[in-house]
Amino acid sequence: MGSKQPDRRKFLKSGAAFAGGLTLGAVEPVIPQTPEDAQSAEDQSQEIPDYSSDELIAYGERSPHVTSVREPVNGRPSPDDFGLVFHIGTPLEEQVGAITPSSLFYFGTTRGSIVPDIDPAEHRLMIHGLVDRELIFTMDELKRFPSVTRLHFIECAGNRSSPRHGRIIESHGMTSCAEWTGVLLRTLLEEAGVQDDGTWIVAEGVEEVKGASSLPMAKAMDDIIVAYAMNGEPLRPQQGHPLRIVVPGFEGILHVKWLRRIKVVDRFYMTYNDYGHLRQDPIDAALSYQVGPKSVITYPSGGQQLPGKGFYQVSGLAWSGGGVVSRVEVSTDDGETWVDAKIRGTAHRMAHTRFSFDWTWDGSEAVLRSRCTDEVGQVQPDRREVGRVRGLDNSIQPWRIASDGSVHNAIT
Amino acid sequence: MGSKQPDRRKFLKSGAAFAGGLTLGAVEPVIPQTPEDAQSAEDQSQEIPDYSSDELIAYGERSPHVTSVREPVNGRPSPDDFGLVFHIGTPLEEQVGAITPSSLFYFGTTRGSIVPDIDPAEHRLMIHGLVDRELIFTMDELKRFPSVTRLHFIECAGNRSSPRHGRIIESHGMTSCAEWTGVLLRTLLEEAGVQDDGTWIVAEGVEEVKGASSLPMAKAMDDIIVAYAMNGEPLRPQQGHPLRIVVPGFEGILHVKWLRRIKVVDRFYMTYNDYGHLRQDPIDAALSYQVGPKSVITYPSGGQQLPGKGFYQVSGLAWSGGGVVSRVEVSTDDGETWVDAKIRGTAHRMAHTRFSFDWTWDGSEAVLRSRCTDEVGQVQPDRREVGRVRGLDNSIQPWRIASDGSVHNAIT
Repeated sequence: MGSKQPDRRKFLKSGAAFAGGLTLGAVEPVIPQTPEDAQSAEDQSQEIPDYSSDELIAYGERSPHVTSVREPVNGRPSPDDFGLVFHIGTPLEEQVGAITPSSLFYFGTTRGSIVPDIDPAEHRLMIHGLVDRELIFTMDELKRFPSVTRLHFIECAGNRSSPRHGRIIESHGMTSCAEWTGVLLRTLLEEAGVQDDGTWIVAEGVEEVKGASSLPMAKAMDDIIVAYAMNGEPLRPQQGHPLRIVVPGFEGILHVKWLRRIKVVDRFYMTYNDYGHLRQDPIDAALSYQVGPKSVITYPSGGQQLPGKGFYQVSGLAWSGGGVVSRVEVSTDDGETWVDAKIRGTAHRMAHTRFSFDWTWDGSEAVLRSRCTDEVGQVQPDRREVGRVRGLDNSIQPWRIASDGSVHNAIT
Repeated sequence: MGSKQPDRRKFLKSGAAFAGGLTLGAVEPVIPQTPEDAQSAEDQSQEIPDYSSDELIAYGERSPHVTSVREPVNGRPSPDDFGLVFHIGTPLEEQVGAITPSSLFYFGTTRGSIVPDIDPAEHRLMIHGLVDRELIFTMDELKRFPSVTRLHFIECAGNRSSPRHGRIIESHGMTSCAEWTGVLLRTLLEEAGVQDDGTWIVAEGVEEVKGASSLPMAKAMDDIIVAYAMNGEPLRPQQGHPLRIVVPGFEGILHVKWLRRIKVVDRFYMTYNDYGHLRQDPIDAALSYQVGPKSVITYPSGGQQLPGKGFYQVSGLAWSGGGVVSRVEVSTDDGETWVDAKIRGTAHRMAHTRFSFDWTWDGSEAVLRSRCTDEVGQVQPDRREVGRVRGLDNSIQPWRIASDGSVHNAIT
């Protein structure tokens, strides 16, 4: 069916009579589609991509009818007024499943920096500092090491900078999740031989301002991945091509992109990336790196419109820096009562976890909430009980469904 | 680092001294990268994409340095001589993890058809035939049903049309794996009410030749997904946008794309898509739809070149239409002895499963093989024992490593 066709004549608005009390709408007469409805290649050639072209045989594209896009969020151009957008959010309201498509993965760029163009054949990673053997690796050498492939979210500490944003891309769009492949940093550090006084690492990228992060050795020897691939492909430039670290469960700015150097040191080193923690003691800051537990209902969410009362599959994402999401509860009465949602697929450590909840809306105003509990027993807090959450705000997100089906942020 | 830089002067060929007997090569002196190495925005603007452009903020792209592409395989233009390529393979040798990136997902087009352009707002799915209630759904209505998100491979029965192909994209490139989201067909059939004599379904797409498949009701009521999304995004046009069925573990042609109609019938109906089964009794054909167990080593594989003796992480994919991959074994001596490989990540039902095996190559000729066993106990066969495998050839793939490090298909 081409978009030019007057298809309204062929299919009147249809309705499905749901068994079991699920009603999408009234049943109306329908007229089946006929074989003549498919347009010929000639008719379509002027308006649609040529999928038999060499270019689209080599590397596919999405349909021109699919229009989900990332957006600048948080009103954050570069603080240096370089005119570069700083925080780019992912359209969570249109995502299904747990994995964020690479083209829609959120990204932030550090002060004044742009996305560097790096030829992987020329790129090197150096490990030095308090080690027995200083090492420099080519990308090909890194790929020969034993590797891991793991699902992990990355969330910016600037996510939810204002709790009153109307749409989810603004309120929660600075988190995404991918299948990462790379070498455990531990493997590389063991090759280099960490000396006894090596208690921290500083990871540094290649961008102009040298995005860098200090991380405790305990985390470095645990689960940090020196990643060269996401979602089955080499890293995308905006996510650190050809090399970044993934620091499971820790705030996004610490996942240094365009990684070129890891120095083993004997103390916390303040770096540019610590601007979010300047008022904290370094040890306190290090302890606050871990995010969550957190969850948000992606459908229905702020700015969306329900077509009418009836059955809905409420769906959302939950995640925690504390490990596996062990439970998600949903409330449809502003937190009075809670029911367990269904965790969809396999819940992975420090990964977005999809949940769903079957709900029949009676058409009256309702407030939906979701609440995440992780494997170590942390429970997502309610602002009404704890007040404003400092740092990365992981409090429960309420969405109010008005009686006309419009959906609004219910934080007052 | 820009590609124009004479980086050779900065980094001599590096080598990492591996502990534990893992040796990549000789250690040579290295010169660390300096801060001046990063090019300024001005220098790069002529040659690299502008990642701060509205277009690349909205929807990201891969690096111009990443060049993996799909290729026509099997020498299969359309049998109608429409000049359209028929079988497009995925570059498995460059993939990591279990999920195939959507842009590199293999595809086949049916006789004479092109990829239809479908406006999802106008698309409808009809369920009719031997049902109590004929139903027609819009895409929005389908998305309101309870959904599932599952990892499944799809493999074309034409995969491995010749066992002697030199490269893996030719020998095994017609299989891919994605995270699919959609509604279980069972859910829709239960809404329609299948009548007692409804023992088969015929699923039909919108393309000119009306790609259609007959499937037994038992499978339809089990795990077939009416899928609208893959890897977190709407289906790609080449994979059936906006709607297809995913028939877990069954051969690819049955996973009807651009799905518009499901008719419940009382017998097997022959369709165009059955041309691969014309010589079979329909019941035999239906029983032969399930593929695997199968596995292939993706690195090292035919056409690749090992840089020298030393440590390698042998890696590959295993899958079976019979369910979960429960075991993968690797042999480095042409099948004389076998060792269990490590299954990487979570093995899912009817999904590509990544395995790896740590190997130190001594530089002498070696033949590598992998062997898959699935949860129902099926074991991948060896051609030397069973002879040529008819239909979808799932026999063990041997790769010969010559003493110069070149890799070749060892099937003789």
